[in-house]
Amino acid sequence: MSAIDELLANNRRLVRSSGEPAPAQAKGVVVLTCIDARLDPARFLGFEPGEVHVIRNAGGRATDDALRSIVVATTLLSVQEVAIIQHTQCAMLRTTNGTIRAAIADELGADASGVDFLPIEALERSLTDDVQRIRSSPFLRPSLSVRGFVYEIETGALREGRD
Amino acid sequence: MSAIDELLANNRRLVRSSGEPAPAQAKGVVVLTCIDARLDPARFLGFEPGEVHVIRNAGGRATDDALRSIVVATTLLSVQEVAIIQHTQCAMLRTTNGTIRAAIADELGADASGVDFLPIEALERSLTDDVQRIRSSPFLRPSLSVRGFVYEIETGALREGRD
Repeated sequence: MSAIDELLANNRRLVRSSGEPAPAQAKGVVVLTCIDARLDPARFLGFEPGEVHVIRNAGGRATDDALRSIVVATTLLSVQEVAIIQHTQCAMLRTTNGTIRAAIADELGADASGVDFLPIEALERSLTDDVQRIRSSPFLRPSLSVRGFVYEIETGALREGRD
Repeated sequence: MSAIDELLANNRRLVRSSGEPAPAQAKGVVVLTCIDARLDPARFLGFEPGEVHVIRNAGGRATDDALRSIVVATTLLSVQEVAIIQHTQCAMLRTTNGTIRAAIADELGADASGVDFLPIEALERSLTDDVQRIRSSPFLRPSLSVRGFVYEIETGALREGRD
């Protein structure tokens, strides 16, 4: 049985036991964070289904696509606050474009030199840059609150980045 | 108190009560799904922190940035299976580029005509297209399992898309 099949079996059991979900009221917040399996925003921020929208990409970066999702959230989902949460021990902190491109070339013979995988050199720096990138978008209201945080894998705690 | 401040207070309380998290072993799966707050993949797929990597963007679409994250997951995080999960009642199903661009022009006077917000016309079609887009990437192993699912908001159940 594949891992996805195991998850599907979980879903069938959960649907039988819990019935129709009743989402809570949305808080007007979107969280942008990393794909890392160790991060469960609902768990470490203590929110219920329906309360907080969540964008996730490798590193929790303010990419064009993250910006697309934030604009969708503010335009269609009444979001007024954005929290960008990057984290310690991130795989993007331990790698480079060269490493990832070499792995792809070695295994697949493909040339990924045109792709920026957005490795992170320094967490405080990437967080500040990414908060600034969202704040300066012409497609978002100046009143939108955009804050940056580091999630410490070691403790589960969040600390706010310097502005 | 802002909604983000409420979530930070939750985090401080949770850190005090649960101590250091002990992530479970990763299953080699990455899930790509939508930002919608009503979707909690850990809850509807029954997995624990550490087990499954999660990418989320508006619609759960196979964008260039989602592909970047999937390549990071396969190259750095040993992922061998990808599940794309789009959902019923998605805000992207009820909108168009014209609607979003008009909202931005009306409120901010900004011209977003160069941005494709990736509205969805038909769910089965977007899912099939997006599965195909990931499967055909030259930066991913042909052995990577890529499957598409629709999450039914009405019931909490998943159904697999047609290939």
